[in-house]
Amino acid sequence: MGTTQLESVQEPKYWHLKTVLSEALDSDFAVGEILPNERDLAARFGVARATLRQALEQLELEGRLQRRRGVGTTVAPPRVGVAVSTSQHEWAGGVAGEAWQPVDCVSEAAPSAVAAVLGTGTEPVHVVRRIRDTHGQAVAAELLYVPASSVPDLSAIDAPSGTVRARAVLRELHRLGVEGQDRSVELGSARADDAKELDRLPGAPVLVVTTRYFASGGTAAVSVATYRADTCRLTFGDSGALEISHDEQQQRQAS
Amino acid sequence: MGTTQLESVQEPKYWHLKTVLSEALDSDFAVGEILPNERDLAARFGVARATLRQALEQLELEGRLQRRRGVGTTVAPPRVGVAVSTSQHEWAGGVAGEAWQPVDCVSEAAPSAVAAVLGTGTEPVHVVRRIRDTHGQAVAAELLYVPASSVPDLSAIDAPSGTVRARAVLRELHRLGVEGQDRSVELGSARADDAKELDRLPGAPVLVVTTRYFASGGTAAVSVATYRADTCRLTFGDSGALEISHDEQQQRQAS
Repeated sequence: MGTTQLESVQEPKYWHLKTVLSEALDSDFAVGEILPNERDLAARFGVARATLRQALEQLELEGRLQRRRGVGTTVAPPRVGVAVSTSQHEWAGGVAGEAWQPVDCVSEAAPSAVAAVLGTGTEPVHVVRRIRDTHGQAVAAELLYVPASSVPDLSAIDAPSGTVRARAVLRELHRLGVEGQDRSVELGSARADDAKELDRLPGAPVLVVTTRYFASGGTAAVSVATYRADTCRLTFGDSGALEISHDEQQQRQAS
Repeated sequence: MGTTQLESVQEPKYWHLKTVLSEALDSDFAVGEILPNERDLAARFGVARATLRQALEQLELEGRLQRRRGVGTTVAPPRVGVAVSTSQHEWAGGVAGEAWQPVDCVSEAAPSAVAAVLGTGTEPVHVVRRIRDTHGQAVAAELLYVPASSVPDLSAIDAPSGTVRARAVLRELHRLGVEGQDRSVELGSARADDAKELDRLPGAPVLVVTTRYFASGGTAAVSVATYRADTCRLTFGDSGALEISHDEQQQRQAS
């Protein structure tokens, strides 16, 4: 049963420790500062390392801490609000100031769940890969699936793959115009290729935004975008400027 | 350096194991089935228990597995699409078939981040607690912060707290009408009270949806809703029926 200082608390130990750690982050650490190693922290708070690790994982989920390759665990800056609305998530890549940078385009069959929505079966579609940068940091990696029928005037003269091809597909898609969109958001883990683009380890928690674009009465394209869950807060809506972060709320409620 | 069967793979071991496990879930297990214990699984796949645990955590993030209290780790059913749009997320609680069930209402100061948006400072606001049920399961717990100025005709005759009070506040709020909404979605961990309502352990990954409702030219209310990240896929948009799940995509891509 032990006699640690946290024994009387009804909540799990790691949960209480998380609250205590959260307050310590506010008072004793600056954004970007590297935390002491797990052994030292466990000793400082009088807990087992397993308990400490659980509490650190909680704080990482809440965006308070970041685990960075080759650096260690640091105090995270507040999450960045990233607008996921019609205008910000336009598929057109040619617009000045557009946040999405096309990096590649290949022609291959879409995954079957996507192919079922597009009605393309095993027929190859254009798969445009884009990266979204915000404040100089890659916040999302996207695969945009475009059936050949959505870009009928795509010229064979354009490069068969790569960035030039990606721009050509987006340019043609732009001519189609968007009539409507459906979108879903769910928790996922970063695939190895996305993780690399986002400077995360494979399996890091991500927010997966799947968008179905409608045009000419059908589904014109499907986008699967993977956002860093540690640094991003996805914003939707009328003004696009929601200035309350969950992080802040938790901090205030804890204090 | 070891000589396990996964040595030659360039990705982290847990990542490769995750793919292997995912295929095993498809072929050898049914939805709801309880997995063998960690020791047996580690032996079966020839990996260390720490590696196994990491892979299981990945599969939990992706919604393939569920850890259930007193049951163990089970194969999860596909995630449920939960609409988070204007009509589904109406604040009115009196509508027949409304998914949100008011459970309580107290009068207290909003957390400072919320109070700043509402402009209420330390002045008490109505805090309505609601639970959202889908297919008989609690999928979200919400705190709706309503300043007194948004419900000027709220009668003092109504109960001071509890469900009756919650319904009265919602009824008055409904008369105001919604002019617009801003919304954000981010990853969080379940607070103890929310976790209990959602039948999860404190700290379980959740999707936190923060909504700012506009009416009469100002912010009329702020909602902070905590959705189960393991079972929910949040849907937005024009038709509200996005039928592609990330889960399915990953399954298809892996096969």
